[in-house]
Amino acid sequence: MPKHPVETLIAQADAAINQEDFATLMEIYAEDAVLVVQPGRNAVGKAQIQKAFEAIAQHFGHSLEVKEAGMEVLATDDTALVLAKTLVSAQDHPTVERKATYVFKKDAAGDWRCVIDNSYGFDLLDSGQGEG
Amino acid sequence: MPKHPVETLIAQADAAINQEDFATLMEIYAEDAVLVVQPGRNAVGKAQIQKAFEAIAQHFGHSLEVKEAGMEVLATDDTALVLAKTLVSAQDHPTVERKATYVFKKDAAGDWRCVIDNSYGFDLLDSGQGEG
Repeated sequence: MPKHPVETLIAQADAAINQEDFATLMEIYAEDAVLVVQPGRNAVGKAQIQKAFEAIAQHFGHSLEVKEAGMEVLATDDTALVLAKTLVSAQDHPTVERKATYVFKKDAAGDWRCVIDNSYGFDLLDSGQGEG
Repeated sequence: MPKHPVETLIAQADAAINQEDFATLMEIYAEDAVLVVQPGRNAVGKAQIQKAFEAIAQHFGHSLEVKEAGMEVLATDDTALVLAKTLVSAQDHPTVERKATYVFKKDAAGDWRCVIDNSYGFDLLDSGQGEG
């Protein structure tokens, strides 16, 4: 199957995170995007999301490496759900595999933008944050 | 937290599935919605989706019961990602818990509609359908 455009964006986002190139990273998010920083704690909008990524970079001693290890895209013409296995590694931290869920929306200009970024997948439910 | 409107829609969809009320069920889907029928096999658009639900009802001897057992909604103004634990039971079948992912979009009239319905969650990746 040909790659969906959002797969390219996710690769660009991973590279931008690893290089701490937050300007490039923020281009991939919609203005009103939601990022799950930790289960139960969300960053909303580009300003909060950039701050969150800066804090994450610092937390990992500027050695964070994210990498996708498998991905499935389900999409209509203007909305895409991505299920991804994401490997997160950093100096002095064990590599963890996260099952991430991303939603992208095609904006009025025809560009895909990430609107929901939940790298914790179903851990949100298992952490007791789910409301049942 | 107040319920997000899509939580009510999901409860209505579950009731409609259990009653085999496909007319009500189809109102919840967008015209171009995608339903994962089985990992690797998708129904696209209302006609295919209704056919799939009719076949599923028949497969389970008209005794299918679906029920949510925990749910988390992440949303912007017009797009919502739902992570749900869904219990699926039927006569002569063991109850299974699925980790489902649904995406809803607010349409031009302001109504939320399901655009992506993947009741298999990350099983899509584990089934070898992921393209890595």
